[in-house]
Amino acid sequence: MAADEFEYISWLRARTPAHPRVLVGPGDDCAVLAPGTRPQLVTTDMLMDGVDFVLADAGPRRAGWKAMAVNLSDIAAMAGVPVAAVVAVALPAGERRLAEELYAGLRAAADAFAVPVVGGDTNAWAGPLVVSVTLLGEATDRGPVTRAGARPGDWVFVTGPCGGSLLGRHLAVAPRVREALALHAAADLHAMIDVSDGLAADLGHILAESRCGAVLSAAAVPVHPDAVARGRETGKSPLDHALGDGEDFELVFTVSPADGERLLREQPVPGLALTKIGECVDQGLWIEDAGTRRPLAPAGWAHEV
Amino acid sequence: MAADEFEYISWLRARTPAHPRVLVGPGDDCAVLAPGTRPQLVTTDMLMDGVDFVLADAGPRRAGWKAMAVNLSDIAAMAGVPVAAVVAVALPAGERRLAEELYAGLRAAADAFAVPVVGGDTNAWAGPLVVSVTLLGEATDRGPVTRAGARPGDWVFVTGPCGGSLLGRHLAVAPRVREALALHAAADLHAMIDVSDGLAADLGHILAESRCGAVLSAAAVPVHPDAVARGRETGKSPLDHALGDGEDFELVFTVSPADGERLLREQPVPGLALTKIGECVDQGLWIEDAGTRRPLAPAGWAHEV
Repeated sequence: MAADEFEYISWLRARTPAHPRVLVGPGDDCAVLAPGTRPQLVTTDMLMDGVDFVLADAGPRRAGWKAMAVNLSDIAAMAGVPVAAVVAVALPAGERRLAEELYAGLRAAADAFAVPVVGGDTNAWAGPLVVSVTLLGEATDRGPVTRAGARPGDWVFVTGPCGGSLLGRHLAVAPRVREALALHAAADLHAMIDVSDGLAADLGHILAESRCGAVLSAAAVPVHPDAVARGRETGKSPLDHALGDGEDFELVFTVSPADGERLLREQPVPGLALTKIGECVDQGLWIEDAGTRRPLAPAGWAHEV
Repeated sequence: MAADEFEYISWLRARTPAHPRVLVGPGDDCAVLAPGTRPQLVTTDMLMDGVDFVLADAGPRRAGWKAMAVNLSDIAAMAGVPVAAVVAVALPAGERRLAEELYAGLRAAADAFAVPVVGGDTNAWAGPLVVSVTLLGEATDRGPVTRAGARPGDWVFVTGPCGGSLLGRHLAVAPRVREALALHAAADLHAMIDVSDGLAADLGHILAESRCGAVLSAAAVPVHPDAVARGRETGKSPLDHALGDGEDFELVFTVSPADGERLLREQPVPGLALTKIGECVDQGLWIEDAGTRRPLAPAGWAHEV
């Protein structure tokens, strides 16, 4: 971990709260964590100026928030508990203020989930801002929820409305970490994913790993007001935006019909409107609209012949 | 973990060897590892085209090797055992062959230390290549060796000759993972670091964390032939190159005089020439040449007044 220009090790040290598992924090060759007792989760996401955010518009603080939050969302997607983060950045040379603001955004998202930033690598260059976060977590006693456990007959749920995130929500990511833990405690989650690529595409990832299909109900998909606004700009339907836009960072999951009925009846997570959007079938990914079923690209998993 | 353009999850899956601790590998929201029993190590390093390598000269395979190897070197610096890696990359758009070669280099370095690549994030953009590796490891039963344990009277060692790495060795990084473990088993290592910033600067990091100083012997510092070659190009002395260049990825460590004498006598690591280059003192960083002692920048730690 070498640092150029903006030496933020002392900055990190002063701002990283004590954490019982952190034995050695920022400033050595590696961070050292006390061993955990549960399966460990590891995820990494790299964000680039001009691709994942436009720095001139978003500002470094929101870029930092997003970089940490999308990783938290990956931990949420497995119903895990985030434990510690490391951050590697390539900073535009000479932009110390940018570095501080970026770090403040990273720190704010980490603080919201009591995650210490235990190390990093700070570099300067002539290129655009790049920030790469790796987040460590651990599973609960119920184990991690993978993408691979959906089965025909399962009900498919989403934790909130989708579409139009480009209007601002794609920066103000609210990772569903606590919600995922509450859901995992309340029901036997067969498979789960967070909506980053798009509701249909991410459900497609579940179907591919689980080797089954699904039928969605067009009328049931919760459409965000931003999807309606985006539709007025693009001419596409709000439903298309809800299914295709991505970066909503809601959770899509499947459960047995019995658990599904109970979740709908009890709505066990305060403030979270759980919506049943479809059911798993043998193969393909379909959408039903006014009694008509049509394939929804991407097609999901098809049995090999 | 979203992937653009070059979808390398299936590539990763086909090429990641089975590992007893990997419960879920590439292709889910997080990788899942079985919990370990020893303290965990975490390190991250980001490399950028034009800063850490010149892609047009080095080629993507050597860039990949370096990106993995510098992280392995950080695990070595704490005498740890590498366990698993995740890789995030920003690829120049449309360069699928580059991506495959880069990954082959990453994989080759990881394979050399039986490290599975358990996840990643592959992105494409209009900018230069950026590759960020996070490596997880674990300490041995003797615990991790930090930078903070050096004390006045300690002997200072280096594991090999330094200087002139820019002539090629800065790409062909040979991380001292096995050597560090052998040293850790053979002696009570008080403090250790790998030479990335430069022999003097990295020893300075040990001194700062340990709150002591050191005196080096100019005649004892092992000078690499590349340092002599570089000196002919730059006009600087080979010793200056050995002390200042960095990216040698040798280990600098301190031990008690009794352990130091034994290490010199027994040379317990086959193929590794351990060299005593100095001794720790109360404060400052000095070099002695033909009986004259002068301060060596960076000055190392000085007692605050």
